[in-house]
Amino acid sequence: MDMLSEKLRTIYNECGADALFLERDFLRQYLTGFYSTDGYVVLDGETCSFVADLRYFEAAERALRGNGVTVIEGGYSKALELVNGKKTLGVAYPFTDAARYLALQKAGFALVDCMPALKHAMEIKSEEEIFRIQKACEIAEDALISLLPELKEGMTETDAAALLEYKMRAFGAGGVSFDTIVAFGANGSVPHHETGETRLKFGDPVLIDFGCKWKGYCSDCTRTFLFGDDKKHEEFKKVYAEVYAAHELVKEKLTAGMTGREADAIARDHLASKKLSEFFTHSLGHGIGLQIHEYPVLAPRGEEVLRDGMVFSDEPGVYLAGKLGIRIEDSVMLQQGKVVSFMTKTERNLIIL
Amino acid sequence: MDMLSEKLRTIYNECGADALFLERDFLRQYLTGFYSTDGYVVLDGETCSFVADLRYFEAAERALRGNGVTVIEGGYSKALELVNGKKTLGVAYPFTDAARYLALQKAGFALVDCMPALKHAMEIKSEEEIFRIQKACEIAEDALISLLPELKEGMTETDAAALLEYKMRAFGAGGVSFDTIVAFGANGSVPHHETGETRLKFGDPVLIDFGCKWKGYCSDCTRTFLFGDDKKHEEFKKVYAEVYAAHELVKEKLTAGMTGREADAIARDHLASKKLSEFFTHSLGHGIGLQIHEYPVLAPRGEEVLRDGMVFSDEPGVYLAGKLGIRIEDSVMLQQGKVVSFMTKTERNLIIL
Repeated sequence: MDMLSEKLRTIYNECGADALFLERDFLRQYLTGFYSTDGYVVLDGETCSFVADLRYFEAAERALRGNGVTVIEGGYSKALELVNGKKTLGVAYPFTDAARYLALQKAGFALVDCMPALKHAMEIKSEEEIFRIQKACEIAEDALISLLPELKEGMTETDAAALLEYKMRAFGAGGVSFDTIVAFGANGSVPHHETGETRLKFGDPVLIDFGCKWKGYCSDCTRTFLFGDDKKHEEFKKVYAEVYAAHELVKEKLTAGMTGREADAIARDHLASKKLSEFFTHSLGHGIGLQIHEYPVLAPRGEEVLRDGMVFSDEPGVYLAGKLGIRIEDSVMLQQGKVVSFMTKTERNLIIL
Repeated sequence: MDMLSEKLRTIYNECGADALFLERDFLRQYLTGFYSTDGYVVLDGETCSFVADLRYFEAAERALRGNGVTVIEGGYSKALELVNGKKTLGVAYPFTDAARYLALQKAGFALVDCMPALKHAMEIKSEEEIFRIQKACEIAEDALISLLPELKEGMTETDAAALLEYKMRAFGAGGVSFDTIVAFGANGSVPHHETGETRLKFGDPVLIDFGCKWKGYCSDCTRTFLFGDDKKHEEFKKVYAEVYAAHELVKEKLTAGMTGREADAIARDHLASKKLSEFFTHSLGHGIGLQIHEYPVLAPRGEEVLRDGMVFSDEPGVYLAGKLGIRIEDSVMLQQGKVVSFMTKTERNLIIL
């Protein structure tokens, strides 16, 4: 029997239940290192077991041999056998459906939420995790650099998104980390614009919010630029300069020990001083890891203290409805108390193609 | 105030709660027709309300005007206001997390599972839904046809998957309906092989399981073929013929009124008669719609009766570990009691490139 790793032991101890019972894909991957669409992870004080059906059993055995995880063939009932006799079970409340919650309760277990313990572990990234995020960021930036000269008048937002996603895949990404947002012209004023059939015109502002995964880990990046300058962009350029300043101020002034609220305020206060904060209608940032939205939260409601090893987005934005939208986003981490950006290949200041 | 559509009224009545409270994306899309990553749908006996935050409010209002859905700006607390005074709330247990379940319970509501009512409505597709699935299937097949001549020796599985996904996007898909599986050579013997860096060689079997979405609706298709014939494929061809026969038998013999178990048995019994059923390690099929795995279930455990308007996969497969894997899958529907395939452009019999 393999010993539990320090990571698993810490999570187990903090949760305090007799065993953890997990079935969401990214949580299973976090504990075992193995990705599958189905399966169960049972973590007790001695063993971490991955219960996989025939579709995954062979591959999981091969991948996890000698890795401190026992692979067992079966499904839900096999996973239940492993916790037979336990009194308390830790399940991740935000990632356990009500049907499963009620079934486990009916089976006689006292349930506790193990998500706080998982969250504490997951929000501080290991070297391997940082390496993967770095790769995902590099692939995304390389893809954008390769896309820019291929943007042409008449192309639709969907064409541009498809091409960018293909390039990320071709450069080694496992897939996108979320549906690519491409917004031409005034479409950028909707922060979560649905990429559609709008065609690119000379002089259009272009907003692209995109990311990919590398070995499960996500990148997140937004660039806003002009597809040629038709000299009608005085206001756009003025607002761009302030969003850019807010983005850079965060990198400069954010330090470990601040709360998410204080980090958010760096950008928000700057935009307020330019009478633009009412148009900054979302949070400054969110944690990034196996999921595109993780902890910590950098927002007015963010009470958590930011620490070394955390990875998150720095993405101030300003949206003037029906008129223009500008967002500048890097994936960054905290290292030795300061912000280090994963994005080093592309410009953040205004590009005019 | 708009009247509820017949679809919404039927769901509301079958659920029997004072109001339905839904927050999973595809369920919101099913009820309102509008896709967003966040938001809440509240359905009471008189009104269907979509509660959206500032990111989606403007777009939702535009899309849903005159559509029988009231759009309200806000988040969770605004959605809660709408059910103020209600006693019983219908939530979709399999798509509600335990944290939300407990919060609503704590707020004083008696919760009931509205998923049976949603499932009954969702598994019978409307004309518009069938149209969208048909489009998603056509795009996927066109993309495969365009991919085949571009497959080259030395290409990796990831290269092929990226190119196929790009073609689906370029042909109009909104995205993939699941991560594309490309398996070269013996990799096909793992039913859910993880697309990787294996390179294509002359004589390799190639298994591609792929699908895309069009306006939210999914397609699902698998083709297995030979990348040139190195004359070492006698067993492969023999097994292929039986999987193909099983696939076609289902189309011929499956009729409305059968259970999912009986449908599954058509393929399983045929493979058993050839001593291959022990290598058919998964279900015959699953419902397809806004999600890639829906109801009905076509498997030995499938007790539900199949009816006109249902859309599902017909995907028998045989896997000889470490040696070969063959799966042939179409997305199909039941119409006037019989199976009609959405896949009409590509061959199902063995292609040798």
